[in-house]
Amino acid sequence: MNRIEINEKVLSKNDIVAARIREKAAQTRTAVINLTSSPGSGKTSLLEALLPRLQTKYRLAVIEGDLRTENDADRLRQRGINAIQIQTGDACHLEAAQVEALLGTTEPAGCAIELETLDLLIIENIGNLVCPASYDLGEDAFFVMLSVTEGDDKPAKYPTIFFNADYFILNKIDLAPYVDFSIEKCIANALAVNARLKTATISARTGAGLDEIAQVIEDIIVAKKAN
Amino acid sequence: MNRIEINEKVLSKNDIVAARIREKAAQTRTAVINLTSSPGSGKTSLLEALLPRLQTKYRLAVIEGDLRTENDADRLRQRGINAIQIQTGDACHLEAAQVEALLGTTEPAGCAIELETLDLLIIENIGNLVCPASYDLGEDAFFVMLSVTEGDDKPAKYPTIFFNADYFILNKIDLAPYVDFSIEKCIANALAVNARLKTATISARTGAGLDEIAQVIEDIIVAKKAN
Repeated sequence: MNRIEINEKVLSKNDIVAARIREKAAQTRTAVINLTSSPGSGKTSLLEALLPRLQTKYRLAVIEGDLRTENDADRLRQRGINAIQIQTGDACHLEAAQVEALLGTTEPAGCAIELETLDLLIIENIGNLVCPASYDLGEDAFFVMLSVTEGDDKPAKYPTIFFNADYFILNKIDLAPYVDFSIEKCIANALAVNARLKTATISARTGAGLDEIAQVIEDIIVAKKAN
Repeated sequence: MNRIEINEKVLSKNDIVAARIREKAAQTRTAVINLTSSPGSGKTSLLEALLPRLQTKYRLAVIEGDLRTENDADRLRQRGINAIQIQTGDACHLEAAQVEALLGTTEPAGCAIELETLDLLIIENIGNLVCPASYDLGEDAFFVMLSVTEGDDKPAKYPTIFFNADYFILNKIDLAPYVDFSIEKCIANALAVNARLKTATISARTGAGLDEIAQVIEDIIVAKKAN
């Protein structure tokens, strides 16, 4: 048995679990979003800025993925968001089984996510542009984020994650004047990999573009309810 | 055979190849540096700023690792640096066998790195804070870089790579006024993971701190010659 075959088996096992999550979320009509980026692109900052306003209309929860620490879940809890941390140790992505283990269970106490009580579940994946690309978590929409400090050629360098994504969010546009980064070139690079990508430019820090992202997420929630 | 055993075997095979690289570089007295960071922290920008001046005194070459594109090797070649690109496809790290394949071979033409002609070989790894942490490439020094736009808690979130590193370079300090980032806290977080870490704060863009990094690399080259 060689390594490729093993990876295929691991992936297909993941796909089976992801299909179960997707089926369960279809029954409960809970929209599920998988949010990925490099380390430090601003995934948690976006959720901090966005979710308190979405929470006034929708019931939501967040699963936070990191190798170590509860930092990100703690940051969201301080904003009144229901957040649960998964620590992967040395793994560079979340797997569907780690998400499924949190759904509908009652142990450990206080750590369960009951999909039937939620309109929206956001899964903030490990900060990584490679590994999360190939692991379906049962999501309705796959978001990939970059920040303008990371270089406008990143979509060409990490094409798989951009190819698999539904939305491309370009963050930290408030820093654009201080770095060598062409927003137009970056978006063109992303669309060259995946012409179906919907794109948005934002600053989680200043709030620019957040109305648009909030509307995108609301549309996903509404579509899920209508199914 | 479970997955952990397979990973151990893959790693130990990598260690055998890395040991061969280390032995060969010891014979030729070539210093080897493995440079890692998140995507977009500024590894290539650092090399663009640093290597033209080091090249006036030392014979050097760079191996560039990316999933796709020759962009980074092209950027260095434009500065007159001898750079060879490895494209890993979907792999999130370089392996020692990929480096060894470039050493001392004559095929493909123009793609060989002859260690006996070099004082310094820098390997710019894939942009990833997880996977490269566990793959020895036969280096004398393992550098991990962050930029101030990525959040000061990253060493706590990605401890393995900081634990295995010898040097921690904090880049983009010119952007510090525009982001919420404590340089002191970040360095304290890194030292909490690895008290042996040597640290430096730089801006590849403005040139701040580059004298210090140049001296660090020169010391590594001189120590290798003396062995």
